[in-house]
Amino acid sequence: MAMGNASAERLSGIFAALADPTRRAILARLAFGDASVTELAEPFAMSQPAISKHLKVLERAGLISTTQDAQRRPRRLVVQPLTEASEWLDHCRQIWEANFQRLDSLLEEMKTRKKHTRKKRGDYR
Amino acid sequence: MAMGNASAERLSGIFAALADPTRRAILARLAFGDASVTELAEPFAMSQPAISKHLKVLERAGLISTTQDAQRRPRRLVVQPLTEASEWLDHCRQIWEANFQRLDSLLEEMKTRKKHTRKKRGDYR
Repeated sequence: MAMGNASAERLSGIFAALADPTRRAILARLAFGDASVTELAEPFAMSQPAISKHLKVLERAGLISTTQDAQRRPRRLVVQPLTEASEWLDHCRQIWEANFQRLDSLLEEMKTRKKHTRKKRGDYR
Repeated sequence: MAMGNASAERLSGIFAALADPTRRAILARLAFGDASVTELAEPFAMSQPAISKHLKVLERAGLISTTQDAQRRPRRLVVQPLTEASEWLDHCRQIWEANFQRLDSLLEEMKTRKKHTRKKRGDYR
């Protein structure tokens, strides 16, 4: 999980962008296909400038891009940063699980040894 | 991906807690096993109060807990919120991939039709 400052900063930007329900809803909407600012603003009780502010945060984090269509300027989901965030989380969980399993088998081993010692002493209850 | 306000708020708290490199490093350290505040502060050029502040953010987000040992008060990773965050990301990526594949096969179909029409007209180049 060691990473340079640049990618650590990038990852912080991704997680910060994800830390808002409106921004997550925008990303979820864009997962279904490109959408203009007007289309994105529709389901929210929010002004277009407020939505545009959220879009700027998402764009800075690399989570969306603006497509070529000059008139509608639809936004597009960029899936790569979601993968990066996901990979960090999975890596952290894998370390945890590996250590959990190690501790678990250590406990199992200790139990078995105890039983074995008791058996040797003829100590049955 | 529909979710109540409570879990949306919870998820925002989790992502916000993850949006800091020191807090992510603390979580990665705790994935290897419980650690006291002193042990956690060691690898960082940071005072214990600064680390304690980060720990409070992590604890509020449900990402760590304080274990029973009254003296050392070691912190423990709680893996469930990492799973929740991961699930949101995976869900978003799955929607995107499904739509990407649909678009892709639509384009394939259009290409095949075009070829077929050309063949009928005997238009080979």
